[in-house]
Amino acid sequence: MIIVPEKEIAGLLTRADAYTAVEQVFASMSKGSAYNFPVIREAIGHADALYGFKSGFDRDGLALGLKSGGYWPGNEEKGLTNHQSTAFLFDADTGKCRALVGGNLLTALRTAAASSVSINHLARKDAKVLGMIGAGHQSVFQMRAAVEQRQFEKIIGWNYHPEMLSRLADVAAELDIPFEEVSLEQMGADADVIISITSAFAPSLMDAHITAGTHIACMGTDTKGKQEVEAALLGRATVFTDEIAQSTTIGEAQHAIASGLIAEADIHEVGAVINGTHPGRTSDDEITLFDGTGVGLQDLAVASSIVDLAIEKGVATEVAF
Amino acid sequence: MIIVPEKEIAGLLTRADAYTAVEQVFASMSKGSAYNFPVIREAIGHADALYGFKSGFDRDGLALGLKSGGYWPGNEEKGLTNHQSTAFLFDADTGKCRALVGGNLLTALRTAAASSVSINHLARKDAKVLGMIGAGHQSVFQMRAAVEQRQFEKIIGWNYHPEMLSRLADVAAELDIPFEEVSLEQMGADADVIISITSAFAPSLMDAHITAGTHIACMGTDTKGKQEVEAALLGRATVFTDEIAQSTTIGEAQHAIASGLIAEADIHEVGAVINGTHPGRTSDDEITLFDGTGVGLQDLAVASSIVDLAIEKGVATEVAF
Repeated sequence: MIIVPEKEIAGLLTRADAYTAVEQVFASMSKGSAYNFPVIREAIGHADALYGFKSGFDRDGLALGLKSGGYWPGNEEKGLTNHQSTAFLFDADTGKCRALVGGNLLTALRTAAASSVSINHLARKDAKVLGMIGAGHQSVFQMRAAVEQRQFEKIIGWNYHPEMLSRLADVAAELDIPFEEVSLEQMGADADVIISITSAFAPSLMDAHITAGTHIACMGTDTKGKQEVEAALLGRATVFTDEIAQSTTIGEAQHAIASGLIAEADIHEVGAVINGTHPGRTSDDEITLFDGTGVGLQDLAVASSIVDLAIEKGVATEVAF
Repeated sequence: MIIVPEKEIAGLLTRADAYTAVEQVFASMSKGSAYNFPVIREAIGHADALYGFKSGFDRDGLALGLKSGGYWPGNEEKGLTNHQSTAFLFDADTGKCRALVGGNLLTALRTAAASSVSINHLARKDAKVLGMIGAGHQSVFQMRAAVEQRQFEKIIGWNYHPEMLSRLADVAAELDIPFEEVSLEQMGADADVIISITSAFAPSLMDAHITAGTHIACMGTDTKGKQEVEAALLGRATVFTDEIAQSTTIGEAQHAIASGLIAEADIHEVGAVINGTHPGRTSDDEITLFDGTGVGLQDLAVASSIVDLAIEKGVATEVAF
């Protein structure tokens, strides 16, 4: 069995690797050759922790397994990250446990890759201004992945706690792209692409903020009750997602579905755009919205890439099992 | 992180250890301090494999995690067992992956421990004859665990393919207990304890076979549609189980429930008997039946014991992760 510890991931997996793995598995999902199993998510009644598994199987890539993920709010005091994830891969031909991969950086990179895939396939080619809503740990992963898809000349940011925007400003400076703090009205007027990555339970970005031609990637909503943008915006936009079943139940689209603003048939798989079976954006004025809910297959695809890279570079720990 | 490979388990875990772990976790389940998460079970559409996870959390023992288990029918040709299982334990205080434990022998021993727990708590003290239905790989694990609970003077066996009964005869000889092949009528008349461990989809043991005072452990039914004994027998017996939710849906009781012969309220947790909150058997004439469906918490409890033993005996592989 192969073990790739958390500390090795940064030296192995590039953003480009994560992008390739996530784009391929979204395509496989849309073709019907990869599917996610039901998600387990439990409040365990100890240490205020949320714990669960996302799992699935990709017949094309033969990636089979799960990512266990949990949120332990008391970890930070112990010098550990609150989110703790581990990916487990199994041999699809025998069922034997094949690999164990640290899942923390993996999760950050696969989530960033998902909005990056959506930008590549749905944003206007001439997009110049990137808007960022949210300035938490994950926000800068999304930013770094996004700027690789278009020639962005400016990044503008908004956060509920404005003092946290320095995180976005610092990374923008590193990327040598001018950064500016803006109001949501200003963001809606100026941004060609907006990434929202918050844990909010009420919308910040309203329908009236958004102007024609914008691509919005909603990356924060992964639970019943969470919401980042006004439901009416989904009624106006062409809505895409990673997995329709999650989009309508735990994703951003749950609210627009519940209020009857859109139907399930109005939501399209981004994989269909990758495969060419959906045209994607058809005009410069169209508003496109990607509801990134996060699926187990993303984790498995990226974990598989990490294992291949670890073997290639000789940093995989091989353990008799 | 600690790794205990499959090949080490036989040298670490005794039947007594497995018994203690399983009895304790059945007790915790009945007290409400341990619970199983929903079961994932998927036909993956590759290599005819069935694959899934059983998971849960025991707040008393702080055992958190899952066992992945699968059935790969083509494995035997490759020199591997068809059933492939691996247990994963997590630190309940931080969510970090704590241990990886080979799950094949573990599964056999925890399943044997469950019927053994039921015999200890439900069979007549003076039980002398053990009946075995089924002669597959798992049958002799059940037999070895059962004979540690009562002073059995004879073992009688029946199998759909009688030529396989030599497996039972061989182990009985090893245990120095006389063995005899019998009809199901004879088994019902003579046996004080019957263990049924088959993968049947139709009953072998009928209500009319069973005489007063018998304890029956049905250990084979873990899927919708499987059945080992006639449903009417559950109407006549006092029915116990590991987990009521599984018993009524995928366990032996599914058929008696579906046909209205018993209600959910007629099924009792064996953990309640262990805890003394249910009296268990109340007369020598009573027929008791244990519906052993197999729960994730059994796997976690036994895996935890294995990790403790591996550390104690210095055979745990420690891997940086």
